[in-house]
Amino acid sequence: MAAPVTVYGPVFSPAVARVAACLLEKDVPFQLEPVDMSKGEHRSPSFLKLQPFGQVPAFKDSLTTVFESRAICRYICDQYADSGNKTLLGRKEDGAVGRAAIEQWIESEGQNFNPPSLAIAFQLAFAPLMGRATDMAVVEQNEAKLAKVLDVYEQWFGENQYFAGDEFSLADLVHMPNTHLLVSKINKAGLFMERKNLARWWDEVSVRPSWKKVIELQSAPRPS
Amino acid sequence: MAAPVTVYGPVFSPAVARVAACLLEKDVPFQLEPVDMSKGEHRSPSFLKLQPFGQVPAFKDSLTTVFESRAICRYICDQYADSGNKTLLGRKEDGAVGRAAIEQWIESEGQNFNPPSLAIAFQLAFAPLMGRATDMAVVEQNEAKLAKVLDVYEQWFGENQYFAGDEFSLADLVHMPNTHLLVSKINKAGLFMERKNLARWWDEVSVRPSWKKVIELQSAPRPS
Repeated sequence: MAAPVTVYGPVFSPAVARVAACLLEKDVPFQLEPVDMSKGEHRSPSFLKLQPFGQVPAFKDSLTTVFESRAICRYICDQYADSGNKTLLGRKEDGAVGRAAIEQWIESEGQNFNPPSLAIAFQLAFAPLMGRATDMAVVEQNEAKLAKVLDVYEQWFGENQYFAGDEFSLADLVHMPNTHLLVSKINKAGLFMERKNLARWWDEVSVRPSWKKVIELQSAPRPS
Repeated sequence: MAAPVTVYGPVFSPAVARVAACLLEKDVPFQLEPVDMSKGEHRSPSFLKLQPFGQVPAFKDSLTTVFESRAICRYICDQYADSGNKTLLGRKEDGAVGRAAIEQWIESEGQNFNPPSLAIAFQLAFAPLMGRATDMAVVEQNEAKLAKVLDVYEQWFGENQYFAGDEFSLADLVHMPNTHLLVSKINKAGLFMERKNLARWWDEVSVRPSWKKVIELQSAPRPS
């Protein structure tokens, strides 16, 4: 029987992996529905109804549809509040203050961390797959930008175990797909490993069962 | 007597204006604390404690501090739930589904709309103020990117009054500071006005008293 939750898009996409990690952390069963972008399926009228920009992922459950990976993750935390990890978006008793301590770092991921890390990953991981040349000037510019962000994170992790303090949260989770790409797929581990607090953080978060399962999904043979 | 809520940063910054608009919509009194970036005040140890990246705005109330404009706006909606506009982040009775309908467009603003619109505004409004040359190639590249986003918005507003349906929400509000810059400050009104549904949306949202007050704050003489 089909799971009531469907995530549309290939799990090797970091934004799709972000949503998968969140669902696994929340113990919410789901099915992955492939969207073959090489065949233009992301531009089909039915997909554009789910995601008007033709981007992955899109999300559907029995109650609604949502797009944008970070918005989907927040929805999963709010809608499936009593399932799996119950503190991913803050403890209920900490209210708006606890949630904001997480939200500010989710926004930092979206605004500061994602643009340069995704640009590097695109040039070194995805462009070759698409038969495009890697633009090394773009890689270098974005490495310089990313290094400044990681310097702030390094200092933060010298005083805090996780982004929002003592507890793993959605703020950590949203950073993981791009970090994994840089550390394990395109030989940019040094950016993280040469910063000892950041390396400690990655050692801790990357062994979570939810993340290991994401890697397993990414390693599975792709549907032909 | 000082208001219990402080927003740090110059209100001509679109990210600071975003937070000011939210506080005005929520009827939460606040004071603006100038941060003179030309004197490097955003790099001072006391400011970096509020905002570790040295960016504006930062936010403080009697309970906590928050950074990143969209995270601050969410916090204001959550913490001051019973003040001012009570549906800015969804009606309580609509729960997670109603909030997600707003959140997906807030993320679209952060991921799709802000990067090209801010790049254009930076080149045409802020670079000249900083004595830097405008890079017209950057303007043109980003106008092409922005046009694609606005095409999606135009289609959406053909069927919906606001981003999240029938009610003004934080999704509309977060788009307003950059739209105002492009429409009123740097002669890029055509991008919006040549799209009739988008023009209708801007006509509606830009006359809200909260937004008029933001413009008033931006027009006030700056502290010397």
